[in-house]
Amino acid sequence: MRTVALVGFGTVGQAVAKILCEGSYDHLRLTHICNRNVGRKKVDWIPADVIWTDDIAEVIDSDTNVMIELIGGLEPALDWIRRSLATGKSVITANKQVIAHSGGLLLNLARKNNCHLLFEAAVAGGIPVIQGVREGLAGDQLFRVLGILNGTCNYILTRMETSGTSFAAALKEAQNLGYAESDPTADVDGIDAQAKLAILSAVGLHREIDFTQIPLGTIQPIEPIDFIYARRLDCTIRQVSRAELVETNDRCVRASVQPMLVPLVSTLARVEGSQNVVVVEGTFGGETAFSGYGAGGNPTAVAVVSDLESIARRADDASADWHTIKKADPVEREFVEPHYVRFTVTDRPGIIASLAGVFSRHGINVESILQEPGCPKDELPFVVTLESCSTVAIKEALTEITSFDFHARQPLWMPIASRVERLP
Amino acid sequence: MRTVALVGFGTVGQAVAKILCEGSYDHLRLTHICNRNVGRKKVDWIPADVIWTDDIAEVIDSDTNVMIELIGGLEPALDWIRRSLATGKSVITANKQVIAHSGGLLLNLARKNNCHLLFEAAVAGGIPVIQGVREGLAGDQLFRVLGILNGTCNYILTRMETSGTSFAAALKEAQNLGYAESDPTADVDGIDAQAKLAILSAVGLHREIDFTQIPLGTIQPIEPIDFIYARRLDCTIRQVSRAELVETNDRCVRASVQPMLVPLVSTLARVEGSQNVVVVEGTFGGETAFSGYGAGGNPTAVAVVSDLESIARRADDASADWHTIKKADPVEREFVEPHYVRFTVTDRPGIIASLAGVFSRHGINVESILQEPGCPKDELPFVVTLESCSTVAIKEALTEITSFDFHARQPLWMPIASRVERLP
Repeated sequence: MRTVALVGFGTVGQAVAKILCEGSYDHLRLTHICNRNVGRKKVDWIPADVIWTDDIAEVIDSDTNVMIELIGGLEPALDWIRRSLATGKSVITANKQVIAHSGGLLLNLARKNNCHLLFEAAVAGGIPVIQGVREGLAGDQLFRVLGILNGTCNYILTRMETSGTSFAAALKEAQNLGYAESDPTADVDGIDAQAKLAILSAVGLHREIDFTQIPLGTIQPIEPIDFIYARRLDCTIRQVSRAELVETNDRCVRASVQPMLVPLVSTLARVEGSQNVVVVEGTFGGETAFSGYGAGGNPTAVAVVSDLESIARRADDASADWHTIKKADPVEREFVEPHYVRFTVTDRPGIIASLAGVFSRHGINVESILQEPGCPKDELPFVVTLESCSTVAIKEALTEITSFDFHARQPLWMPIASRVERLP
Repeated sequence: MRTVALVGFGTVGQAVAKILCEGSYDHLRLTHICNRNVGRKKVDWIPADVIWTDDIAEVIDSDTNVMIELIGGLEPALDWIRRSLATGKSVITANKQVIAHSGGLLLNLARKNNCHLLFEAAVAGGIPVIQGVREGLAGDQLFRVLGILNGTCNYILTRMETSGTSFAAALKEAQNLGYAESDPTADVDGIDAQAKLAILSAVGLHREIDFTQIPLGTIQPIEPIDFIYARRLDCTIRQVSRAELVETNDRCVRASVQPMLVPLVSTLARVEGSQNVVVVEGTFGGETAFSGYGAGGNPTAVAVVSDLESIARRADDASADWHTIKKADPVEREFVEPHYVRFTVTDRPGIIASLAGVFSRHGINVESILQEPGCPKDELPFVVTLESCSTVAIKEALTEITSFDFHARQPLWMPIASRVERLP
């Protein structure tokens, strides 16, 4: 019999409690529910012997075996997890910030105290990708992970894609459906996915990176016209998180979270609505993809309960297999790849010549220029696609280009995924 | 340090040995390679202290910890696995026949002898679906598994789809590429997928079924014209394996392996070439999909080596979590769903009336009749789609219809997947 304390009784916490109370989990017993102002949280379907408390010390000082942390945010969650592990309690968490920030340290602490730290729910909710990568593909040597790790962004982008709606309208819709927070910054600017990508880098590539170094690009400036141009390039737009071992220095991970053009036939293009996908590439197994519901109370609760079951199954030295995770060098932020740049200008002769001149001076080859008919001359959107060039080159060129006076709006640039992920 | 004997040194066995010898597997040591006529198998990159033998007794009587069985086929593999487990050796196998036939019995034997039986490689090769379903989704209650479990069929069908080639030509191509055996029956008639589906039913639905009871449909009679008609219905054709708990009797599993029309936008339609996909549906987590390379030496070897790593990580009573697998009632073979029937007739007036009369007498509603222009009158293919009806009804109607004298070829019927799997 394993005893379990639930810390945080929101949507996910309640879903976990439901699964535990309604299922046949004879080997698991809920002992505590800890939440701020716990009185207003009480529900009648929780067994009478469960202790309701708003004092975390009551959980940490108890002899309960496992703490499930679902309060989110860095502190006090990190402190509570640390104290629980120090008493030999295993911890299951859905907290991407804590794991991205201090995962390595906490895993060591767990090992030292002969207990476990599991966090399947921290990345891609109900999709068992941590376990899949860490255990199911343990026999492979992975060199790249990429995916769609934020369901809110994906909902917004797929809505813009299918209905031609604006970013603002799609965001509003996502908020009304409860997919997006009232402050959507963490989702749309990539902060949420940044933490998740750092966790995947540790688990999949065995490299612990400083997640704050992963460069971010926001999806906010994307407009319906970008989907029209993307389609002319047989692409659509997704917020892509990617990390790969650097060929010349395998202590180093190249990573980014940003909107990208992805081929319509790619795995990434096919992820719709609030779903997530993680694609990993290995030396032996090739590409393997995991997809499903990356968020929501029930899918996330499945990940938490699966972790609970997993603890029961593990040998005591289970954290030992994390020893291969190494501190990585600073994150490599440079990719070399084709780019899409959308300009919105007040039209006049000579604009193309000016742009081409700048790109040329930076050693960048223009591949094509696309212009949809029928757009207003004073706010004319057109697209330049560029052959492979480095991130630094395009940024420098665009800094120079921004100083021209013909812009009606800031130019928007996105990489074009040059590799076609062929998996379904 | 764990010691490992490799039994079967073909494509997969050699790939496993390569990964073990080239990787940093300090905690694993290869002790034996056992193969018929082992002399002709010897290679110089295997460490000198490995014992080469063609006598399985030498492996079973040794104190090696783990036997990896890669010879395939029911016997003698089953006997060897049984004897190994009886001596307390853990067994890792890629053998779908053995697991489909005697998995429950062998798992019990493993538990009794305090050792492990793992078989990730037996289903969907390099895709970690056994682990994903058994552990990653342990917290969910799955009620349906479906997938594309045979890469050979999928290669043939996607070739027919994209290039309009005949079944025979696509098969020939698959054989030339090494995807298909010289006798392709096990693949194209569904026998291979049948065993894999039974394993997924046990692992995912916790129901052990007699795999020989799963009804099979062959892909052999499918013709290029069927892809043309399928496309008019916004579908394509895939060999689909599916198993689901019967709503009214959860001791019973409804299952089939057969070619089906699947919507172009579905998960299943998007699996191309020799890839595999497994989609599971759960009460809490919704749909989750696992996709990747289902066969080939390296991907399958990844599954085997991942199982090896997994043994190291497990508690001694690890097989205990299999206790929830129950013997199921006989397989339910009846589905109620829409159907596609392609007739090839020597055209004359009254054919549609005759067909419609028979369907009507069997209580089956005709939904649409499709006929491509420009086909020869003496061998005219046309399609009737039927509203939802039971498997037994359509079979009885077709038996009656077959006796008409206007057929130039046997009618071909396939279910139309009525549920759109929306996952990427």
